[in-house]
Amino acid sequence: MQKLIEKASILTEALPYIKEFSGKTFVIKYGGSAMIDENLKKGVIRDIVLMKYIGIKPVIIHGGGKHVSDLMKKLGKEAVFVSGLRVTDQETVEIAEMVLSGLVNKSIVSMINMAGGQAVGISGKDGSTIEGKKIGGAADLGFVGEITRINSKLIELVDSAEFIPVISPIGQGAGGESLNINADTAASEIASALQAEKLIFLTDVNGILRSLNDENSVIPRLDIRQCREMGSSEAVSSGMIPKLNSCIRALEKGVKKIHIINGKIPHSLLLEIFTREGGGTEITAG
Amino acid sequence: MQKLIEKASILTEALPYIKEFSGKTFVIKYGGSAMIDENLKKGVIRDIVLMKYIGIKPVIIHGGGKHVSDLMKKLGKEAVFVSGLRVTDQETVEIAEMVLSGLVNKSIVSMINMAGGQAVGISGKDGSTIEGKKIGGAADLGFVGEITRINSKLIELVDSAEFIPVISPIGQGAGGESLNINADTAASEIASALQAEKLIFLTDVNGILRSLNDENSVIPRLDIRQCREMGSSEAVSSGMIPKLNSCIRALEKGVKKIHIINGKIPHSLLLEIFTREGGGTEITAG
Amino acid sequence: MQKLIEKASILTEALPYIKEFSGKTFVIKYGGSAMIDENLKKGVIRDIVLMKYIGIKPVIIHGGGKHVSDLMKKLGKEAVFVSGLRVTDQETVEIAEMVLSGLVNKSIVSMINMAGGQAVGISGKDGSTIEGKKIGGAADLGFVGEITRINSKLIELVDSAEFIPVISPIGQGAGGESLNINADTAASEIASALQAEKLIFLTDVNGILRSLNDENSVIPRLDIRQCREMGSSEAVSSGMIPKLNSCIRALEKGVKKIHIINGKIPHSLLLEIFTREGGGTEITAG
Amino acid sequence: MQKLIEKASILTEALPYIKEFSGKTFVIKYGGSAMIDENLKKGVIRDIVLMKYIGIKPVIIHGGGKHVSDLMKKLGKEAVFVSGLRVTDQETVEIAEMVLSGLVNKSIVSMINMAGGQAVGISGKDGSTIEGKKIGGAADLGFVGEITRINSKLIELVDSAEFIPVISPIGQGAGGESLNINADTAASEIASALQAEKLIFLTDVNGILRSLNDENSVIPRLDIRQCREMGSSEAVSSGMIPKLNSCIRALEKGVKKIHIINGKIPHSLLLEIFTREGGGTEITAG
Amino acid sequence: MQKLIEKASILTEALPYIKEFSGKTFVIKYGGSAMIDENLKKGVIRDIVLMKYIGIKPVIIHGGGKHVSDLMKKLGKEAVFVSGLRVTDQETVEIAEMVLSGLVNKSIVSMINMAGGQAVGISGKDGSTIEGKKIGGAADLGFVGEITRINSKLIELVDSAEFIPVISPIGQGAGGESLNINADTAASEIASALQAEKLIFLTDVNGILRSLNDENSVIPRLDIRQCREMGSSEAVSSGMIPKLNSCIRALEKGVKKIHIINGKIPHSLLLEIFTREGGGTEITAG
Amino acid sequence: MQKLIEKASILTEALPYIKEFSGKTFVIKYGGSAMIDENLKKGVIRDIVLMKYIGIKPVIIHGGGKHVSDLMKKLGKEAVFVSGLRVTDQETVEIAEMVLSGLVNKSIVSMINMAGGQAVGISGKDGSTIEGKKIGGAADLGFVGEITRINSKLIELVDSAEFIPVISPIGQGAGGESLNINADTAASEIASALQAEKLIFLTDVNGILRSLNDENSVIPRLDIRQCREMGSSEAVSSGMIPKLNSCIRALEKGVKKIHIINGKIPHSLLLEIFTREGGGTEITAG
Repeated sequence: MQKLIEKASILTEALPYIKEFSGKTFVIKYGGSAMIDENLKKGVIRDIVLMKYIGIKPVIIHGGGKHVSDLMKKLGKEAVFVSGLRVTDQETVEIAEMVLSGLVNKSIVSMINMAGGQAVGISGKDGSTIEGKKIGGAADLGFVGEITRINSKLIELVDSAEFIPVISPIGQGAGGESLNINADTAASEIASALQAEKLIFLTDVNGILRSLNDENSVIPRLDIRQCREMGSSEAVSSGMIPKLNSCIRALEKGVKKIHIINGKIPHSLLLEIFTREGGGTEITAG
Repeated sequence: MQKLIEKASILTEALPYIKEFSGKTFVIKYGGSAMIDENLKKGVIRDIVLMKYIGIKPVIIHGGGKHVSDLMKKLGKEAVFVSGLRVTDQETVEIAEMVLSGLVNKSIVSMINMAGGQAVGISGKDGSTIEGKKIGGAADLGFVGEITRINSKLIELVDSAEFIPVISPIGQGAGGESLNINADTAASEIASALQAEKLIFLTDVNGILRSLNDENSVIPRLDIRQCREMGSSEAVSSGMIPKLNSCIRALEKGVKKIHIINGKIPHSLLLEIFTREGGGTEITAG
Repeated sequence: MQKLIEKASILTEALPYIKEFSGKTFVIKYGGSAMIDENLKKGVIRDIVLMKYIGIKPVIIHGGGKHVSDLMKKLGKEAVFVSGLRVTDQETVEIAEMVLSGLVNKSIVSMINMAGGQAVGISGKDGSTIEGKKIGGAADLGFVGEITRINSKLIELVDSAEFIPVISPIGQGAGGESLNINADTAASEIASALQAEKLIFLTDVNGILRSLNDENSVIPRLDIRQCREMGSSEAVSSGMIPKLNSCIRALEKGVKKIHIINGKIPHSLLLEIFTREGGGTEITAG
Repeated sequence: MQKLIEKASILTEALPYIKEFSGKTFVIKYGGSAMIDENLKKGVIRDIVLMKYIGIKPVIIHGGGKHVSDLMKKLGKEAVFVSGLRVTDQETVEIAEMVLSGLVNKSIVSMINMAGGQAVGISGKDGSTIEGKKIGGAADLGFVGEITRINSKLIELVDSAEFIPVISPIGQGAGGESLNINADTAASEIASALQAEKLIFLTDVNGILRSLNDENSVIPRLDIRQCREMGSSEAVSSGMIPKLNSCIRALEKGVKKIHIINGKIPHSLLLEIFTREGGGTEITAG
Repeated sequence: MQKLIEKASILTEALPYIKEFSGKTFVIKYGGSAMIDENLKKGVIRDIVLMKYIGIKPVIIHGGGKHVSDLMKKLGKEAVFVSGLRVTDQETVEIAEMVLSGLVNKSIVSMINMAGGQAVGISGKDGSTIEGKKIGGAADLGFVGEITRINSKLIELVDSAEFIPVISPIGQGAGGESLNINADTAASEIASALQAEKLIFLTDVNGILRSLNDENSVIPRLDIRQCREMGSSEAVSSGMIPKLNSCIRALEKGVKKIHIINGKIPHSLLLEIFTREGGGTEITAG
Repeated sequence: MQKLIEKASILTEALPYIKEFSGKTFVIKYGGSAMIDENLKKGVIRDIVLMKYIGIKPVIIHGGGKHVSDLMKKLGKEAVFVSGLRVTDQETVEIAEMVLSGLVNKSIVSMINMAGGQAVGISGKDGSTIEGKKIGGAADLGFVGEITRINSKLIELVDSAEFIPVISPIGQGAGGESLNINADTAASEIASALQAEKLIFLTDVNGILRSLNDENSVIPRLDIRQCREMGSSEAVSSGMIPKLNSCIRALEKGVKKIHIINGKIPHSLLLEIFTREGGGTEITAG
C-alpha cells in the first residue's frame, strides 16, 4: 500500500508540468535507435500516447534512412552520398517513398493505435502538406528536395479531431513529383508552421557536447547566439550541423524551445517534459 | 537518473486508466477527516486538480457538519438531533447556510484555485440546482430538506468551461427558503442527474466492513442486491445506512460504479482511479 | 377595458428604451435600504428580472455591511473602523465571508429565482473572479483588500447562459486568503471589465447634492471633469467620496454612463431605464 | 413622479407574461380595419415590434383583398365572386400578386422598420414557402389555390436572425404559376408548420358570438369539439366559417391556442398577451 | 457514344474555371431583352442555377422599367423623363414598387425555383437592405432615390442558407417611403458592399464600343483610368454613361472585375465565366 | 462563337444531374487499365476533381495488384495464388503495404493535387479505418484479411474539410499487423459504412455480360435478386463473382446504386453520372 501511495504521489508531482503544457503543440523528430530497438520503440510510443491523453498535442515527424538503405540493398542498388546527402534518382525516390510513407509511417501509426492512441499517417503529399523543389547546387542530387512551403491545414484538422499526426518526410514537387526531404528540416519547418511550444529531436547522443569525444560534456542550455557560434566551432560533429541550422531557423520563426535528447534513455521524452532538469540540450531564442 | 526513469515509468502505468476515464464524470462526496486535516486536504485538492487536467470531470459535493456545530456553539445554540438528523430552526439553517455556502465552500474553491485548477462554488440555490421540500414524518425537523429535483444545467455549464464545480448541500424550497440537505444524498442525486461514471464517497473508514469492529474486514465488492441485504444486516454501522440507501438509489438511476474509500489514506482518490485494486468497497449494479 | 388599453399603451412607451438597451450590460451596485426593507427588496428584484427578460444583461454586486456587523455583535466582536474602513482580522473576514457569500448572496439569488429569473451567486473567489491584495498604508487594516484584477470569464459564462450573476464583494488574495473588498469599488471595476453600458448605484439618497443638507438640490448631470472637482469640494458627504472616485475610474476605463439613484423610491431602477428623465445623478465621460 | 412609479409598476405586471411567452412563436393573421385605419395600423405595428423585443417570435401573415379590388377597379376589371371566393383569371392573379407581395407586404415591412424592428417580406414563392395547387370543384375559379405544403425553412432562417417575417398569401403552383391563397388558411397552415404557441386572428369583430347580432355575446372560450359544433350552427356568420375550419385544422396539427380578437380595439394584440382575460374568443384543443 | 465522350470532355474543360470561382460572389445586373424574351430568360435562369450548384454565389439585381411603363399606360398615367430619369410621383412609385417587387421579382424567383434552384426575393426595404434618400438637384424628380447605405446582412443570410437572392431596386427612405432606384447603381453598390469577385451587366449590346455605330468595335478590356476617359469621350452612348460611372465607383470600392456583356447571346453568362475570352468588355482596377 | 454557345449549352444539360447528386457520397473502386494507362489515369483524376467541385463527395479506394507483383519480382519473390487469393507471408505483406500505401496511394494523391483538387491518402491503419482479421479456411493464406469493422470517422473528417479521401486496401489486425484486403470488398464495405449514394467499380470490361464472350451483351440493369442468380450462373467470369458478392452485401447494407463500368472508355465516370443512360451495368436493391 505504501508503494501505491508513493506512486500516486509521483503522479501529482507531474501536475505543474501537465498544467503548463496543456493544449500546447510538441513537434517530435523521431529517429535513430529509438526507432529501431523494439523496447525503446514501445516506450516512445507509450510516452507519446500519454502526452496526447494529458492534453499535449504531439506531432511526429519520422526518419527512416536505414530502412531505405536496406531495401535498396535488397534491390541491388548502391546508396551514393554527396556531402552527406543521398543522391536520389527516380528509382531511389520511389524506394524512399515506399519505405517511408508505406512501411515506416504505417508501422508507427499502427503501434500508436495498439498503445491506445489513434494515429493518422500523413505524407508530405497528403493535403500538399510539404511542398518542395529540388535542391540546387553544384552536384545534381536528383530528387532531394528543400521545403518551399508547409500547408498545415491537414495536420491541424487531424490534431483537432483527437488523432495524433505522424508525418513522413516526402515532399511534393511543383509537378507532383516525390522529393526526399531531410527529416530534421521537415520537423523544424513544421514546428515553425504550427508555432510549436517545443521541438524535440530524439537522437542517439546525450545532447550537444562541449568536447566531441566526451559523452559527459553535454551543454545543458544554449541560446540562439551561442547556437550560431557552435556552427562554426570544431567541437560539433558534422551530423549535428544541419540540426543546429534547423534549430536556428525554427527559433527565428517562433518556436519557443528546442530540445536535443537521447532517445536511448528509456522515457527520455517524458523526462524532458516532466522534470525541471529534463536532459540533453535545451535551446531557446534568447 | 535511474530514479527519474522509474518515475516516468510510473506515469506511463497510469495510461490505461487515463484513457479509460477520459471525458467521464466523477462525483466526489468530500467530507470527514480529509476535509479537516490540513495535509490530507491539500492532498485531496491536488488529486482533484490532477484529475481535471488529465481529462476527467470531477464534481465535488462537500459536507461540513462539524463546522456548523462549531459556529452554533459560539453563538450559544445547542445542536439537537432526532434519529441522526439535526433539528433545524430558522436560525440554525441560516447558520448552516453561512458556514456551508459561505465558508467551507469558498475555502475549497480557493484551495483548488491555488493548486492550479479553477473552481466555481455552487449552492443548491444557484441556478436552482437543488430543489427540495421539508422532510415529512413524525418529528418536525424544521428546515431539513429532501431533494425533489436536481437542475444540472449550471453544473454542466461550469464543467464545460473547464471549471471544477464545488457544490454545497443547501437546497432551495418551493418558497425560496433554505433547506439543510444531507450531503451524501445530494452527492447521490447529483451523480444520478449527471449519469456519472463513478460516485466516490471520501469517508473516515476503510469501506464497508464485514464485522463492524474489524477494520480489516473490508468487503471489496458488492452488487446492488448484496447492498440491499446489508441494509437490514446488523453488521452495518448506523452512520453507513443512509450511505447504503443513497448508493442503491444512484445505481438504480444509472450511476455506473460507487466507491466508499478512506480519505485518511493519502492520495486515496488517485489510488482508486489509477490502480486495478483501488481500495475500499466498490458497488456496482449487477 | 379602457384602463387595460392605457396599460398596454404604457408598455409600448417603453419600446424605444427596450430597443436601445437590448443586449447591453448594466452593472448594479445593490445596497442600502433597498436591501433591507422587504417591500423595496421585492421591487428591486422584480425590476432586475424584468430587465433580463426584455434583453438587458443585469449584473448585480451587493454590499451587506449591516448584516456583517449584526453577526459580529452576536459573536461578541466589536467593529473597529479606521478612516471609514473596517479593521478586519482573520475572524472578522471569516464572518464577512460567511455573511456576504453565504447569507446575503444566496438570499438575493433565491429571491430572483422566486421572481421568475434564474440567478447564480458568485463570490470573488469563484473562478478567481476578483483577485486582490491587502491594502497598504499607515494603519494595518488586516484583510481589507484592493482589487488587482477582475477575471470576467465566469460572469460572462453565466450571463450568456441566461442566468443573472449576483456577486459578493469578497476577493481572493495571492495566497488564497479571503479579502474584504469595498462593494462600490468592486462594482466599478467589474463594470469596467465588462465594458458596461451603465453602472447604477442604488443608494439611500436622491443623488449627488449641490447643498449637502438640501435633498432637493440633486445635480441631474455631471461630466468627469465636474466629478473630479466635486471630489475636492465640501458639498460632498464623506460617504460619497469613494463612490465619486469609483465613478471617475470606471468612466476612464470605458463605462458609458453612471447613475446614482435613490433605492428608496419604488421601481427606481426601471424609472432610470425607461424614462427620459430618470432620476438621481447621471455621470458621463464628457 | 408618482405617475412614473405607477407606470413602472405596470411594466412589472407584464413580467409573468413575458416570462411565459419568451421564445414562443405567435402567428398573427393581420387584416381588416387594423390594416386600413392609419392609427390602428401604427398601434399594431408597435405592438408587434414590442413583442419581438421582449423575446416573442411574431410571424405576420397579411391579407389585402380591399387593396386588390381597388386596383382592379382602376384597371377597369370587375371582381367576380363565387361562394365567397374571388374568380381569378391570369390578369387578376397578377394584380393580386403585385398588390399583396409588392405594395401591402412592403408597406408593412417598411412600417416595422420605422418602428424600430427589422422586417423581411416573404411571398409564398420565396424559398417556395407556400406550395399550392388550383382549388378543384364545380366552378373554375382560375388561379385560386389551396396549400399542398409549407416549407418553413426561410421563415425560420429569417426569424432566427432577429428579423420579423411578414408573409403575403401568394402561393406557388407546381409549374411556378402564382396562386391566390386565402390568408386565414395560410396563417393556419403556417402556424401548424411552425408548431406555434398561439395563432391570433386580428378581425373586425369582438370574437365568435353566441347570437349573431349581439356584439356583446362573445363566447370567451371554446374547445375543438364546440368549435366543430359551431360550424354547423346558424349562429355563426358565413365569413366566420372558413376561419373556424382553419382553427380546427390548426389545433389538430399541434397549434396550442387560437385567438379571434377585435383589431379595432387599440393594442388588442398586447391585451391578448399581457392580461389574464385577453379579449375575444380563445380556442384550445380540449 | 463518341458524342457523349466529347460532351463529358467539355465538362472537364470547365474545371479550372469552376475551381477558380468556387465560393466567390458574382453580382449580376439582370435587365434588357434577356428579361423579356422567353427563351433568353429561361437560358439566363438555368445559367444562374448552374452557377449556384457549382459553388459560385450569384446575387441578382433586376430592372424592369418596361414593365413599369406598361402598367402606367394601362392606368392612364404618362411617363415623364427628365435627363433620363423618370419623374416619380407618389402614385408612380407605388406602381413601380408593385411591378418591380411584386411582379418582376417574384416571377424571377419562381423561374429559379422551377429550374431547380431556391430563390428568395428581396426588396430594398426588406431588412432595410437599400437605404436611400431623394435625389437632390434642379428638377424635383419626386421619389427617385440615391443610395445612402447598403445593409448586406439579409443578402448574406439568404446566400449562406443556399438560397439565391433576387433583389428589386426599390429603396427605403428615412421616413419609410419607397424610392425608385436605378438598378445599375443598385447592382454596383451591392457588389461593393459584398466585395464581389465579379459584377456582370447583362445588356442589349456587345459591350463598350470604340465607334458608337459599329457593333463589332467592342473594346475587350478597359482599366479604370481608360474608363474615366471614356466617360468624357463622345464615343459612348448616353445610356452607357451611368453604367460607366457605376463601374468606376464599384472598382474603387473593391469589386475585382466588371463585365458588360450581351444578354441576347444565349448562355452569355456561362461564356463569360467558363471561357478565357469571355465576351463583351471587361473592366478592372488597373 | 456558335461552338462556344453549344459548349455552354452542354454544361447546362448537366444541371439536373448536378442538382440530383449534390452532397451525395460516391465511392469509387479505382483499378484496372484506368490506373495504368497514363491518359486514362489523367482522365479519371480530372473527372474525380470535377465531381468534388460540383458538390459530389467522391471517396476513392484503389487496387494495385500488378504493382505489387512487379516489386515482388524485382525482389526475387514468386507470387503464389490459392483460389484467386495471393498467399501472403510477412515479407509479402510488407511489400504490398509499401507499394499500395506508399507508392500507388501517394501517386494518386499527388495527381489529384496537380489536377486542382486536394487529396489525402488513407491507409486502413490510419485512424484504424479498416480493422480486420486473417481469413480463415482450409489453406493458410497468411496475412490475407477480411474486414471486421470500418471506422469511417477519419474518412468523414477528411471529406468534410474539402479533401478527397484516397484509401489503400491495407487492413489493421487486432495486434496491429498489416493485412492484405481485397480492394473490391473494401470499397463495398466503405460504401456501406458511408451509406453511399453510388458505389462505382471502374473495371476493364463493359459491365456484366449475358454471354461471357460477347462484349456487346452487357446487361444494363440488375436487381439484387437477379444479382444473386447470376452468382450461380455460368455466364459470369470467375473474376466477377467476388464483385457480385460485394455488390449484394453493399445493397443489403443500404448503398443505393452500384455501377460496374468500363474504365477504358474515356470519361466513363462522368458519363455514368451525367447521362440518363450511363453505361455498363447498374445494380439496385429492388
